[in-house]
Amino acid sequence: MKVLGLIVEYNPMHNGHLYHLNEAKKLINPDFTVAIMSGNFCQRGEPAIVNKYARTEMALRNGIDIVFELPTVFAIQDAGNFAFGAIATLDKLKFVTDFVFGSESNDVNFLNQIAEILYKQPQKFDTIIKRELKKGLSYPNARKYALQKFLKFENSKIEKLEKSNDILGIEYIHSLLKLKSKIKYHTIKRIGSNYNETELKGKISSATAIRNAIKNNLNFSATLPTINLKILTNEFENGRGPVFLESLESFVIPYLRTLTREKIEKIYGFKEGLDIRFLKAASNAGSIQEFLDLVKTKRFTYSRIRRLILYTLFNMKKEFVELSNTYGPQYLRILGFTKKGQKFLSNIKKHVEIPIISTASLYKKILNKIMNDTEKEWKVIPELYLWQFEIDILASNIYAFFYPNKSQRKSGMDFRNPIIIE
Amino acid sequence: MKVLGLIVEYNPMHNGHLYHLNEAKKLINPDFTVAIMSGNFCQRGEPAIVNKYARTEMALRNGIDIVFELPTVFAIQDAGNFAFGAIATLDKLKFVTDFVFGSESNDVNFLNQIAEILYKQPQKFDTIIKRELKKGLSYPNARKYALQKFLKFENSKIEKLEKSNDILGIEYIHSLLKLKSKIKYHTIKRIGSNYNETELKGKISSATAIRNAIKNNLNFSATLPTINLKILTNEFENGRGPVFLESLESFVIPYLRTLTREKIEKIYGFKEGLDIRFLKAASNAGSIQEFLDLVKTKRFTYSRIRRLILYTLFNMKKEFVELSNTYGPQYLRILGFTKKGQKFLSNIKKHVEIPIISTASLYKKILNKIMNDTEKEWKVIPELYLWQFEIDILASNIYAFFYPNKSQRKSGMDFRNPIIIE
Repeated sequence: MKVLGLIVEYNPMHNGHLYHLNEAKKLINPDFTVAIMSGNFCQRGEPAIVNKYARTEMALRNGIDIVFELPTVFAIQDAGNFAFGAIATLDKLKFVTDFVFGSESNDVNFLNQIAEILYKQPQKFDTIIKRELKKGLSYPNARKYALQKFLKFENSKIEKLEKSNDILGIEYIHSLLKLKSKIKYHTIKRIGSNYNETELKGKISSATAIRNAIKNNLNFSATLPTINLKILTNEFENGRGPVFLESLESFVIPYLRTLTREKIEKIYGFKEGLDIRFLKAASNAGSIQEFLDLVKTKRFTYSRIRRLILYTLFNMKKEFVELSNTYGPQYLRILGFTKKGQKFLSNIKKHVEIPIISTASLYKKILNKIMNDTEKEWKVIPELYLWQFEIDILASNIYAFFYPNKSQRKSGMDFRNPIIIE
Repeated sequence: MKVLGLIVEYNPMHNGHLYHLNEAKKLINPDFTVAIMSGNFCQRGEPAIVNKYARTEMALRNGIDIVFELPTVFAIQDAGNFAFGAIATLDKLKFVTDFVFGSESNDVNFLNQIAEILYKQPQKFDTIIKRELKKGLSYPNARKYALQKFLKFENSKIEKLEKSNDILGIEYIHSLLKLKSKIKYHTIKRIGSNYNETELKGKISSATAIRNAIKNNLNFSATLPTINLKILTNEFENGRGPVFLESLESFVIPYLRTLTREKIEKIYGFKEGLDIRFLKAASNAGSIQEFLDLVKTKRFTYSRIRRLILYTLFNMKKEFVELSNTYGPQYLRILGFTKKGQKFLSNIKKHVEIPIISTASLYKKILNKIMNDTEKEWKVIPELYLWQFEIDILASNIYAFFYPNKSQRKSGMDFRNPIIIE
């Protein structure tokens, strides 16, 4: 049995994503296709344009058989930990045989070579990277230069370390190595515009460009499969989006103003004086953009700053994030499936070692049950399970308040929305 | 030397306030007139329409000689603790001889009679009030019925216990008794519309009606002294107002959604299941009005709910509020004075037993200095001093973010704005 695993944000799912999905299927010819998808907040440190249920529907209507939620703690971390959480989820599904990811270079051997270095961390490489970091470079840049020096790359190769998909790809392979996973990995060459391209480029446009078009009321209808356009439009018409980081502006800045150094120091990712920078910027900023600009340095990218904002809003304490980065996801949260996906589910049920959550409101009962299970040994840390899941719930509750339609802003979408079944 | 003390919010200062000020002066013929004024948040649990500096200017331009800020912890408490904090401030000024307050009944003897009962708390009265509270009544109502039963009032007298100014008046006298203050008190009959009147009634309109008119873009120019209209308009033109509770909507509800029962239980005023009601309402509310309606019961008035919201935003822990309600203000914060007011200041300087703060940024140094003062014994609890003052600063920082003009939203108005000197 062949099971294709994909890691996606689908924010929103557009023609480029559909192309990638179809190419991956051609390559693997899978019996089932599984997607691990971010929830209501994404890796750029921003709320998703529409909620995870609408995005799940898009996935299922376009050929994904089952969608699992990537727990928020991973969905909003840097490339390394995002990749680790997502790969660990694929791995914990037990039945995924093949993983396919988009790549600008489409050079698996090269990506693999880099991932091996990251995995084995030769001392010489480690020394170089530390020296580069001390110069004040951001981690991705420090790593890029360290690799350059370590491997004495010619220039054309170095470029591959600057493209988003390749950076992620390296981290995916790195995580597969760490987990000693048996999942085989493949790349598909990315077509069309770059991940970070901000303007529409016809039918194959980047998700960033599509979100910008939505923000600026431009016509983006050619960029999505028709059914996705319909799903998206329906969300907007019901006032459940679009949600932008700017929507959270009047929450974020005054919230940061209520924080003290002692509180912010306990949050994951606040080191190297970032706590003081954050508090100072929150004092002086009149808008979210001004805040980002005030915190920004060569070392701290906008994405990282946005992610850090979310860590404070969700009160993501260091110890739990670090535990998560070691032990991975503690549950397999289903957002939706097709009839075929349901079959996949019944295949894996007896084999998984972390619980499958399909009814969110039962999350405590499920934990109780597995803790008292005498027949099977589950690989779950109870406190971490609760913490990860409750962050997902909180993220949804905060997300929902920023819907344009006030009557849609209730908390508890996770408890109210049934699983999407197509 | 006669010193007239007044307790005000001036939100904004209107013709009715000016009439009251002038009548009080006629009555006392004072050498100096001192006002204790709320800062950026008021007793109704709402942000002031314009900041405390603009409102201080209004006071000084209309005949007040010096304005002290009522620490936020008192400014946003119920009538009893508001009155206690304000009366204690007047008392700690050492030189105030006469206190005048507006009264619907203008019946000092009656108000005094009630205050004496509240102060002495005869056991029989106490028993009745507890019984009424058990029935689910709000405290003001329970007290009203208890007094009715205890004193066997005729109906016309009971009415006086329903008017805002008389209720406050009783609490003022009650606090003077508690503090064994030598300040003499007098009433002036309130003219014009009721405190809670929501519509404009010509030249003498309530502050509530004026704020509503501002919200609804109605002409309210006849209701204020010309200079105050100018000050107010200037604030609006610079985008430093108007600020309404609704302005804080996108902050308040998601903020409450981040709270847990354990956190909210530590906040002052959360008892009788209010913590659960708050969290549940925050989950379900799409707007601040919906939130208030969801929490509202016969027992919990809108004002009380709004005040409780502010306690959570300012993280006002039980123990510090209770200490404050026992020991009163720990500093005398000057917001502004006239030349005459400056003379008053030099009179009192040597005699006060809590420090006068005129430069906010020096508040820690001032504390240090008095703690090491070998010549004089100061009546200050250091932790309480810091806590009270830092709540004032935080309140200002949150307040400022809700100015319409983004470039005016910086924190630190207390440190940046010089004292208003007229």
